[in-house]
Amino acid sequence: MVASNQVSNLLEIWKSEVRASMAAIPTDLLDLLERPLYAHLATTRPDGTVQVSPMWFDWDGERLRFSTTTKRQKYRNVQSHPHVAASISDPENPYRFLEVRGVVEEIEPDPAAEVYMQINNRYGRPFSDQAPPDATDRVVIVVRPTGSSKYPKPWLWEKLKS
Amino acid sequence: MVASNQVSNLLEIWKSEVRASMAAIPTDLLDLLERPLYAHLATTRPDGTVQVSPMWFDWDGERLRFSTTTKRQKYRNVQSHPHVAASISDPENPYRFLEVRGVVEEIEPDPAAEVYMQINNRYGRPFSDQAPPDATDRVVIVVRPTGSSKYPKPWLWEKLKS
Repeated sequence: MVASNQVSNLLEIWKSEVRASMAAIPTDLLDLLERPLYAHLATTRPDGTVQVSPMWFDWDGERLRFSTTTKRQKYRNVQSHPHVAASISDPENPYRFLEVRGVVEEIEPDPAAEVYMQINNRYGRPFSDQAPPDATDRVVIVVRPTGSSKYPKPWLWEKLKS
Repeated sequence: MVASNQVSNLLEIWKSEVRASMAAIPTDLLDLLERPLYAHLATTRPDGTVQVSPMWFDWDGERLRFSTTTKRQKYRNVQSHPHVAASISDPENPYRFLEVRGVVEEIEPDPAAEVYMQINNRYGRPFSDQAPPDATDRVVIVVRPTGSSKYPKPWLWEKLKS
């Protein structure tokens, strides 16, 4: 007999995989979004040139969330160019990685830094357990995945296995 | 008395720092280019959307080199959009990182995969010590830095020190 909490756990895993699959994320690399890793977020400046830097993020099974402020270049970038991409590597194996391409669906004000603090918690509060001094300028960039590239490629898996 | 090899070493360090400074790289983060780390390289597709993935690279003190093939999307991207950006984190401290923005100055054919093998050596030949099967399609993307962003920001250094 299967305990009800086991059924419930399996159901949660299944739901998470269905959501990820709808979001075009390969399920075997889903842990890279679920763990508090660093997403190298690429955005496009108003002049059309690219910019990329590592960011904290949150993942709800459908969309990625990044906290920034209205004073930063990244905010100006996503206003002029809503298409972004994020690259996330497994720190235990740099050859296992995921690229998520997506579109900024919303830029939500976060004036009490509530989302920032939630993400700060997810990363273990390395700098502070207080709301940041720039809380009033905080916004959340909400990204819906539109595509992804899965690594390693099959030929690389073969090499890694041998 | 200072031994001549010490003078020679100091001279090499100084030359390396001068070159980096000419290339707009902050000298206190220069080790992130000199070590065999992974650069998350952001490029722009012909349709104007961004793409980003971790790459091996080489650094000669002035320019970055990335090996790819003429069959890959990245090659098509840099032909249509020569502005690129790379984000490199310190694996020992994810809050210490460097963004280099630059322009593709040359795309050099590498049909014997010589540059590929040199870079393969730099990374410890994790997959093979042979030239890859796609050697004839190999090209080297040569990037001259035009700007960089230095992290952590001063306020973050303060936090990290405390």
